[in-house]
Amino acid sequence: MTGSGLVSRSLSKVRELVVNAAQLGRETVAKDPEHIRRQLQECAEGRGGEVSTRLRAARLAETYLHLDDAQRRGFLRMIAHEFGPDPAQVANAHEAYQAAVGTPAQWDAEARLRAAMRSRRLRILTQFNAIPQGVKFLVDLRADLLRYLADDPALKPLDRELETRLSAWFDVGFLELQRITWNSPAALLEKLVGYEAVHEIQSWQDLKNRLDSDRRCYAFFHPRMPLEPLIFVQVALLEDLADDVQRLLDIEAPLADTTKATTAIFYSISATQPGLRGVSFGNFLLKRVIDDLKRDFPRLHVFATLSPIPGLARWARRHPDALAAAVTPADAKRLAAAGVAADDFATDGVGALLDRLDGGAWAADAALAAALQDVLLRLAARYLLEARRDERPTDAVARFHLGNGARVERLNWLADTSPKGFAQSWGLMVNYLYDPERIEANVEAFASEGRIDASTAVRRLARR
Amino acid sequence: MTGSGLVSRSLSKVRELVVNAAQLGRETVAKDPEHIRRQLQECAEGRGGEVSTRLRAARLAETYLHLDDAQRRGFLRMIAHEFGPDPAQVANAHEAYQAAVGTPAQWDAEARLRAAMRSRRLRILTQFNAIPQGVKFLVDLRADLLRYLADDPALKPLDRELETRLSAWFDVGFLELQRITWNSPAALLEKLVGYEAVHEIQSWQDLKNRLDSDRRCYAFFHPRMPLEPLIFVQVALLEDLADDVQRLLDIEAPLADTTKATTAIFYSISATQPGLRGVSFGNFLLKRVIDDLKRDFPRLHVFATLSPIPGLARWARRHPDALAAAVTPADAKRLAAAGVAADDFATDGVGALLDRLDGGAWAADAALAAALQDVLLRLAARYLLEARRDERPTDAVARFHLGNGARVERLNWLADTSPKGFAQSWGLMVNYLYDPERIEANVEAFASEGRIDASTAVRRLARR
Amino acid sequence: MTGSGLVSRSLSKVRELVVNAAQLGRETVAKDPEHIRRQLQECAEGRGGEVSTRLRAARLAETYLHLDDAQRRGFLRMIAHEFGPDPAQVANAHEAYQAAVGTPAQWDAEARLRAAMRSRRLRILTQFNAIPQGVKFLVDLRADLLRYLADDPALKPLDRELETRLSAWFDVGFLELQRITWNSPAALLEKLVGYEAVHEIQSWQDLKNRLDSDRRCYAFFHPRMPLEPLIFVQVALLEDLADDVQRLLDIEAPLADTTKATTAIFYSISATQPGLRGVSFGNFLLKRVIDDLKRDFPRLHVFATLSPIPGLARWARRHPDALAAAVTPADAKRLAAAGVAADDFATDGVGALLDRLDGGAWAADAALAAALQDVLLRLAARYLLEARRDERPTDAVARFHLGNGARVERLNWLADTSPKGFAQSWGLMVNYLYDPERIEANVEAFASEGRIDASTAVRRLARR
Amino acid sequence: MTGSGLVSRSLSKVRELVVNAAQLGRETVAKDPEHIRRQLQECAEGRGGEVSTRLRAARLAETYLHLDDAQRRGFLRMIAHEFGPDPAQVANAHEAYQAAVGTPAQWDAEARLRAAMRSRRLRILTQFNAIPQGVKFLVDLRADLLRYLADDPALKPLDRELETRLSAWFDVGFLELQRITWNSPAALLEKLVGYEAVHEIQSWQDLKNRLDSDRRCYAFFHPRMPLEPLIFVQVALLEDLADDVQRLLDIEAPLADTTKATTAIFYSISATQPGLRGVSFGNFLLKRVIDDLKRDFPRLHVFATLSPIPGLARWARRHPDALAAAVTPADAKRLAAAGVAADDFATDGVGALLDRLDGGAWAADAALAAALQDVLLRLAARYLLEARRDERPTDAVARFHLGNGARVERLNWLADTSPKGFAQSWGLMVNYLYDPERIEANVEAFASEGRIDASTAVRRLARR
Repeated sequence: MTGSGLVSRSLSKVRELVVNAAQLGRETVAKDPEHIRRQLQECAEGRGGEVSTRLRAARLAETYLHLDDAQRRGFLRMIAHEFGPDPAQVANAHEAYQAAVGTPAQWDAEARLRAAMRSRRLRILTQFNAIPQGVKFLVDLRADLLRYLADDPALKPLDRELETRLSAWFDVGFLELQRITWNSPAALLEKLVGYEAVHEIQSWQDLKNRLDSDRRCYAFFHPRMPLEPLIFVQVALLEDLADDVQRLLDIEAPLADTTKATTAIFYSISATQPGLRGVSFGNFLLKRVIDDLKRDFPRLHVFATLSPIPGLARWARRHPDALAAAVTPADAKRLAAAGVAADDFATDGVGALLDRLDGGAWAADAALAAALQDVLLRLAARYLLEARRDERPTDAVARFHLGNGARVERLNWLADTSPKGFAQSWGLMVNYLYDPERIEANVEAFASEGRIDASTAVRRLARR
Repeated sequence: MTGSGLVSRSLSKVRELVVNAAQLGRETVAKDPEHIRRQLQECAEGRGGEVSTRLRAARLAETYLHLDDAQRRGFLRMIAHEFGPDPAQVANAHEAYQAAVGTPAQWDAEARLRAAMRSRRLRILTQFNAIPQGVKFLVDLRADLLRYLADDPALKPLDRELETRLSAWFDVGFLELQRITWNSPAALLEKLVGYEAVHEIQSWQDLKNRLDSDRRCYAFFHPRMPLEPLIFVQVALLEDLADDVQRLLDIEAPLADTTKATTAIFYSISATQPGLRGVSFGNFLLKRVIDDLKRDFPRLHVFATLSPIPGLARWARRHPDALAAAVTPADAKRLAAAGVAADDFATDGVGALLDRLDGGAWAADAALAAALQDVLLRLAARYLLEARRDERPTDAVARFHLGNGARVERLNWLADTSPKGFAQSWGLMVNYLYDPERIEANVEAFASEGRIDASTAVRRLARR
Repeated sequence: MTGSGLVSRSLSKVRELVVNAAQLGRETVAKDPEHIRRQLQECAEGRGGEVSTRLRAARLAETYLHLDDAQRRGFLRMIAHEFGPDPAQVANAHEAYQAAVGTPAQWDAEARLRAAMRSRRLRILTQFNAIPQGVKFLVDLRADLLRYLADDPALKPLDRELETRLSAWFDVGFLELQRITWNSPAALLEKLVGYEAVHEIQSWQDLKNRLDSDRRCYAFFHPRMPLEPLIFVQVALLEDLADDVQRLLDIEAPLADTTKATTAIFYSISATQPGLRGVSFGNFLLKRVIDDLKRDFPRLHVFATLSPIPGLARWARRHPDALAAAVTPADAKRLAAAGVAADDFATDGVGALLDRLDGGAWAADAALAAALQDVLLRLAARYLLEARRDERPTDAVARFHLGNGARVERLNWLADTSPKGFAQSWGLMVNYLYDPERIEANVEAFASEGRIDASTAVRRLARR
Repeated sequence: MTGSGLVSRSLSKVRELVVNAAQLGRETVAKDPEHIRRQLQECAEGRGGEVSTRLRAARLAETYLHLDDAQRRGFLRMIAHEFGPDPAQVANAHEAYQAAVGTPAQWDAEARLRAAMRSRRLRILTQFNAIPQGVKFLVDLRADLLRYLADDPALKPLDRELETRLSAWFDVGFLELQRITWNSPAALLEKLVGYEAVHEIQSWQDLKNRLDSDRRCYAFFHPRMPLEPLIFVQVALLEDLADDVQRLLDIEAPLADTTKATTAIFYSISATQPGLRGVSFGNFLLKRVIDDLKRDFPRLHVFATLSPIPGLARWARRHPDALAAAVTPADAKRLAAAGVAADDFATDGVGALLDRLDGGAWAADAALAAALQDVLLRLAARYLLEARRDERPTDAVARFHLGNGARVERLNWLADTSPKGFAQSWGLMVNYLYDPERIEANVEAFASEGRIDASTAVRRLARR
């Protein structure tokens, strides 16, 4: 009985898709711009009743799916340029509005100005929602749009309108938190494999291990995008703060005893829909996951991540002085003993040491590794606490967690010895700690003053 | 097993509600305007992270629920007046926009103007979505707003912004069509009883009869308003076009044999949420219901309503000439024989006949009823085909069905002999026919030219 | 979305029923005994493959549903008499078995004897399971059988075979505990109204009250009898041990605050299927309900019933000496003052007092009621602790709860002042207490020695 | 939302398991026979109420799971030998029964004899049902029992009693037909991989291919063994009768267009539970699958298998004469030309040719293969139509399908060129056709007279 409701529901979805595709397919897909323009106009005008408008929009959406990248860009440009508000009408409405400010007529005038600003672009796009899986279609369409945007700023108002609409649809109140387990549909699990962005899932066996009884996996879903996780987090239940991601990913490792677990480690968080950029729900995810975990495991009281430091090595290359400054005289001595000349980490020679750090081979040289440990940890601490871009932390993962109220708790040496781990941060990882007592204050301090919470140990490391 | 998923899901909802109410309840509800203004400002600014913003908004929403009508109006006025866009910023952005029109900078300028127009009102309102059943809360809040709007046009921009947001949320692509049966949750069925707007449901027995095997009931639901139908339609499966609603509502009537059914009669359609005024989904409902019925009963080929004519008697009072014009010399003779003087239906004396038609007593006088039949049917046909307000049919039900592509198929004499039926249309009812072949053309003709489709018989009746 | 799975599943059930009924209906139902005998033989032989055997059995089951009571009895007698084991074959197999006892051949011989005993009766009956809702059909058929059994002992082996089979099917491991709430299907709630055996449910309003947030209702279901509760219990969550059932049933009473609840009162337990006599699951129900309640309300620690004493008045009539013995000299004095002569409760005159106790009018006479209180409580205590039939408590409700490990905790004066309450026990009710610490020991002591656990107060009352 | 009900249900199952295991685990598992005997006696007597009996049984079942094979056999022997009926009591009851035959007392006496035969073995075993997943436990226990049975006939009565009980529990009326798709739980799909008995599933990719839109997979489930298929069938939807299983299994093959499908090929049927031997439901599976397919694909009208002939090569070894007889003079000539001497297929030299047929290398020799084709097809036709064991077809797959009413429709040359296919039937496969018009008659003819239905072509092949 278990799966039947699920199966039959998604089947009827599939059937509907097939039926509609067949209906739509009766006509050949017309990719001719003039034809598309005419269709867009019909959509924008909504002639012939809503039902037939939707059907027409559905055909147009199907057309879009058959276009190549250049054609899609043209399609979106056409919408952006030709279906915007009419500047003359806007000017009139604005004049009336300003004239009415302070009088009882102001409110009506505001509504009229708003109406004049309302573009037909969005009307067209949201009608595409009529195709099966229309929400997913629009999210993917926005992903296209974002790619084109860099070269084509004229798409910006269209993007903003679409972002606003997607923000409305993906309001966190509409999202559903679900646990994902080995009993979840294979079609969903297959997507996790594709979407996992932090520690690649190697096989179904690897996936099964990540869903075992000492793990938890949660995702947010939208009611109209079934089997499509928006963001998901993988959690390990442990007896202490994890300092080594290999141990977590090892499919041969024994099961942990969850009755003793005190610590939940979020070791992978992946957002899956590029088309939802700017629509935030990550912080709600962690909050709700923590609530759920606490209910199931009352002994849990430490909630932390074991996170990569994706921008560290790249940043070090750009700031040779930082590495130079991180080497104390004592370090320099040890480095010299391990065969690293002072020139190699001098500001203008820093490339030499960084080149040596490429790949993980150096880690096998115990003396060298020992000599580097303090230097690199110090450098990482300074990077996390001090490196800024546009007044926010340079590191994308740090931005996410610090913005959500976490603190930089601990740096871990040789914690991710995969090629990717060595490449991005010489194997270093960091624990961000979510302390329910401090989250609120941290969010506020970070948002208003850019203040970053960090443990004494990390703070001491960073100190000069 | 059947109901368990359902039950447990809604239970956890209830539990969540209780928990949150308890959290919120810790503070006494502060109804003081200054306090509310401060809270609104905090909401609008979103300080302290999204999670705490939501929590604050939830408290404010709870406050709203404890306000009386006058206080609510004040609350909404405060939002409308104090959290709108800043006219000066709008003026600046508009100036830059107009200056940029036609240049590559136009698009960016448009986005900036749009940003300047974005008010904090909506930001505040949508954060209320954070309370359990937040969507229903906002729908009900808009119902309040609509009531206040008549006296307080300054609320209009707030209403428009909220309507826009609700239209986004209640996009028909998000709605779920569900059959409602005697196996549906009692809590849902209880709501049908309360919401039924056409033919009052007298008892659970009456309701059960309307859900029997020769009936169907369908409703649209929103995923975040479970157990809350948005609009529902009651269908009877028959062998011919129903001409008598009493027969349909009679709980003693024998079950129809659905294997012989050729005709689906939509005998009651009720929209339930005043707060969704302007958000349309009724036409999609009928389309999807027809699709579903066809799949289950392949012999069905007639889809029609048996509808009230709610505005007929009221309209006749206001147009005494129409009644006078509907009486042919032959009618006049029959009326005279039945004791109705010619003066009683003369244009300036029409009140006399209309007064006699009050209540249904006249229907018991066979001679009088016979003499009136042609007159009233003719009057009704002209009312439906000709009476207009703002270029659209005067009758609200006619507006709905004709706008959806139906045609006026047949008028039925003594079809609703309830007090309400006599009062609004002297017992007359009308069948609107949904002919899948003609719907599209009808929608188009009605929308563009106001053309109304009608059967030959009705058209002949209306002819002068 | 919530209810859709539910609805569609049960619909497909209904559709299947209709389809099958139509298939079956092609032939007229033949009620002629010779025809039935032939059909039974075909069923018993299982000719033509299992699929067609099942179809044939389904036809026969449909036939049964169209028979009147006398015909059904004839049908069942035919199965009982003509499809039993063959005594001669049994004799042969038995002889071989006894000869083999103690030798290695014993086991095979036992299997052969068992095969010879296997009757075709059950084979016929269980094939009836092929009709939709076949399990319910067999349960109802056994209810018929039990009614006929009293007059027709020849049906006994058939009854025993069917009971054995039903016991296998209704093994408690297969039953599902479900909470019933106001969100449960109306079709299910309607059945509760019909099945409630202790305190009649007066209206949907009354039912809704019993499902409110300070109440719980649980039932056992069988996976093949959806929407058909087998046994259900109604629970009130209170702050003390209830002593008055009117208070619990009062639909005007305010909601209790469940966060303060310490006590769960089982105030109504109804078994619904007479055809499941002898199949026990009541004790599992209470155990699982207690577990579920504890999980949801950790402060709960008292689990008790507020139960009727259905056999008390009837027993008193049959044992006039018991009443006489319950009147102490002090009572006699008070009774005399209230107008009850000593003769009225003398062993041979006891009818007089009992006659006065008919109806509840006496309770309005404060002096009389006060004089009777001790007497009747004493009598009730002795009845519960001492009255035996076949070595088990005379009172059916006492048998159930004491057999499940409860103890007699408290007697309550004027606790059920309904006509039924006065008629069966002069308004007295009893609390049976389920003390998790004592249940096991009580069950054992009761089963092995017939020992009854009771509170000191009740024990003192009963003492002579 | 989709999977959540599913997930939470199975989670609560898991949690229950954990909790109970913890409860049980408090005591060390005692494997000492005397201790076990005592526990069995307590179970059989059911002391201390049903709840504690169940708990005790659950402990015993847990014990069983920790025993090794020899200990399990001892455990089952103990139950079989020591908890059977008492021969003396049986003798008494039997004597009374025979004395009563023909008198009104017969029926009561039969019931008493039946009671005397009722053993405590089954009582013990069914109480094991109390552990979570108790049904699966008993099915697995019977699988053990069947393994031991060959060497230990004394276990036979226990096996028969358990089979009878499992037959009652697995009555086809209780089974649920479910479609399995790529949306089914991964935990279920993983089991398919393990259980597939006909064409091994190589990878998740292979599995996904078998669940694609031109395939169907159905299984029977028991409500108390969720995620545990009892038997499953894989179906391909095609435009003609498949003659080549490689084509079906090729994961690179293009998707078939199911709108054109006329033919459903059951290309793999696997029963999964050895412990359910003797409990039949395979024929119901095919009937219900055919019904379901017809509803979804109205153009389907051919329902057939593409089946292995698992016993062909083995049978040919044992019947050298059959091969010799299958070679016509024309064949002999062709074989000689291909290098096969007449001696190699003479009755006493047949091993030589059969040895050459080992492995599939011969198939690459076009001349040899051509020379062998008629011979082997003829041999296979005779094997299927004529080879008998205990009056039923020697071939297990033939027994299954012919018993279900299929006919031998077509033999296919080089249809399964896997090593297994060559080994068991030199690459030959057979289509069994399920013709709804003939199934009933075929079942009857096969059951009563052993008559096998076959197409003219196959019949002609077999003719001598």
